[in-house]
Amino acid sequence: MNKETKNNSNSVGLVERQYFSFAESPNEMVLENGERLGPITIAYETYGKLNTNADNAILITHALSGDAHVAGYHSENDDKPGWWDFMVGSGKPFDTDKYFIICSNVLGGCMGTTGPGSINPKSGEPYNLNFPVVTIGDMVKAQKQLIDHLGVKRLMSAIGGSMGGMQALEWAIEYPEMVASVIPIATTSRLGAQGIAFNEVGRQAIFADANWKKGNYLNHDCNPAHGLVVARMLAHITYLSEESMHKKFGRRLRDRERYGYDFSSDFEVESYLRYQGESFIQRFDANTYLYITKAIDYFDLNRDYGSLENAFKNVNCKFLVISFTSDWLFTTAQSKEIVKALKINRKHVSFCEIPSKYGHDSFLLRNEDMEQMLESFLSHVYDKPKKL
Amino acid sequence: MNKETKNNSNSVGLVERQYFSFAESPNEMVLENGERLGPITIAYETYGKLNTNADNAILITHALSGDAHVAGYHSENDDKPGWWDFMVGSGKPFDTDKYFIICSNVLGGCMGTTGPGSINPKSGEPYNLNFPVVTIGDMVKAQKQLIDHLGVKRLMSAIGGSMGGMQALEWAIEYPEMVASVIPIATTSRLGAQGIAFNEVGRQAIFADANWKKGNYLNHDCNPAHGLVVARMLAHITYLSEESMHKKFGRRLRDRERYGYDFSSDFEVESYLRYQGESFIQRFDANTYLYITKAIDYFDLNRDYGSLENAFKNVNCKFLVISFTSDWLFTTAQSKEIVKALKINRKHVSFCEIPSKYGHDSFLLRNEDMEQMLESFLSHVYDKPKKL
Repeated sequence: MNKETKNNSNSVGLVERQYFSFAESPNEMVLENGERLGPITIAYETYGKLNTNADNAILITHALSGDAHVAGYHSENDDKPGWWDFMVGSGKPFDTDKYFIICSNVLGGCMGTTGPGSINPKSGEPYNLNFPVVTIGDMVKAQKQLIDHLGVKRLMSAIGGSMGGMQALEWAIEYPEMVASVIPIATTSRLGAQGIAFNEVGRQAIFADANWKKGNYLNHDCNPAHGLVVARMLAHITYLSEESMHKKFGRRLRDRERYGYDFSSDFEVESYLRYQGESFIQRFDANTYLYITKAIDYFDLNRDYGSLENAFKNVNCKFLVISFTSDWLFTTAQSKEIVKALKINRKHVSFCEIPSKYGHDSFLLRNEDMEQMLESFLSHVYDKPKKL
Repeated sequence: MNKETKNNSNSVGLVERQYFSFAESPNEMVLENGERLGPITIAYETYGKLNTNADNAILITHALSGDAHVAGYHSENDDKPGWWDFMVGSGKPFDTDKYFIICSNVLGGCMGTTGPGSINPKSGEPYNLNFPVVTIGDMVKAQKQLIDHLGVKRLMSAIGGSMGGMQALEWAIEYPEMVASVIPIATTSRLGAQGIAFNEVGRQAIFADANWKKGNYLNHDCNPAHGLVVARMLAHITYLSEESMHKKFGRRLRDRERYGYDFSSDFEVESYLRYQGESFIQRFDANTYLYITKAIDYFDLNRDYGSLENAFKNVNCKFLVISFTSDWLFTTAQSKEIVKALKINRKHVSFCEIPSKYGHDSFLLRNEDMEQMLESFLSHVYDKPKKL
């Protein structure tokens, strides 16, 4: 797949999005809410090669606004590599010389996997809000089909940050024989009231956009872009720490010496957020935003399994749980709840709170501690797969 | 003014909103941005009586969504008293047997004081976005006209929480001979990047509403209610602490046993926020929301006076600075910056961080520590006005 490398050291080079379809009628996938969904197409990318034992595969699970494009470039003219490019490649923590890396766009997504913007085969029109409300469990159930399709016998690791961490946890619980290790980063076993509240405000911002058209904007050839911008701006604040915002922007003015006394962007932080919002709507779909935030809100291992201790009773893998000091959205305390419940079950768990100023987004940024820890943990799992 | 008391112990009873107008042409008020504004009407309420020395007056300055109606009821059928009712009345911290209490709606407001929804005498139509961008300093400058009009020689105290605290600080600095004491509560000398960012998202939510009509919604007989709801829901999250949201709502579902798998309110925290948003738009104006958040963003004593130390060089009153442990919007650290700058100037300042779980909103809620502290501080100022 890697046809050429760009001038990025150890880049996986040019990569292609691939597709896998399943759940054709009458074998639709049964969702947690009881509905049936099919056919389902999953968009994914892979880097490296599956070994003959089919046990060197690592599944990377992406966060709310992520997609399957983890590393490399889609074309020679591509300015930006995948979202975790610094982690994937020869000699990098996800070493493509040793491992077979997989990442798929989540169910309900808008980056190639079946979601609310896909055509409903029954109507010949986009699903829109007729798309079923899917859960993190449903996302993982669909990923399992892809993993089987790729011939992977047992995942060496399932790893992800934020909503990706929720999927990794779900893998450990639902498919205990299918994962040798799980690395939940900056995540939680259930979102708290404040997290649900922020997600709900984002959804309300989309609902409030006159172009949302009760979810049917695709049929009206319009786009609730304003609402999605507002949702993204808000979410972006929660991904940063107060300290990092202070250091990065403070009260610096944007292209002016004094206040404008108007409602344009006076401050750099305003124009930065507006820019982030505007960029986001170029690549993301408003209905998918609704569905994915809802899946995050619904994720609750305590509720689903009676208790968190109970959720982990049958897990059969090694855990590395990682949090970041300045993450106020998915806090260290939330990671520690996971660690505690695993320890009560006498499972093999390592935990590290990594010092970082960058808030929840820390896992997306280069961090020597994180990179070394992942490299060493994965090497260990790779070298001793049978001893786990 | 107090015609009757409701069955609220020591209520100030029925109260009336009053009005004061000034700055008639050609004596318009000159604003910080250099524009002239007039005539200006200020809506205000008073409780208690001004003494013959005219030195027992306390000015309460309200926060973003507050108004002049601090205490008592507007009618027999009024369900709710003013926003700080538990503080104002006979025997309460703002003791109406001793003090003359004043509160006025801020310039740019929508509760009776001249603001963007007022009629522009030049056009005969609402100002809308032709209303000048006013500052905290402009609000205080207008209040000063009211205080003079009421015959107050020197305010015994200027006190307010949040944006009210900014106004109180401005009083101390701009009118040092006019205030015997100042009590800034849960406030800051300048908003940080995160605070500006939250305000900007609120404004963008209003801009995004198709009914905003570039600010001219009054002329189109419509209302950007959706946008204002979103802005308020977001702001409301920042007024609460994560802990208080967790305790109050957790992940409890609303009127259902299991998830709805739809986009109605599953969780109590969602329906609470929606309710708060819907209530807010019954009483608040979207353009005022834009103007007042902008005034808050612009407030920066460091910038206006070169440094915070310099800002306080000529203040001539006693300070009581109060913060709350769980307030993550206007933190204790921000209050301490004020205290430090006052101490460097050898000013008389007391500081207290009050333990509270309720976040920024703590100052609006009953709190024995806060009430006792205010009562004792005010009594002291009242008894020894000359010794300050």
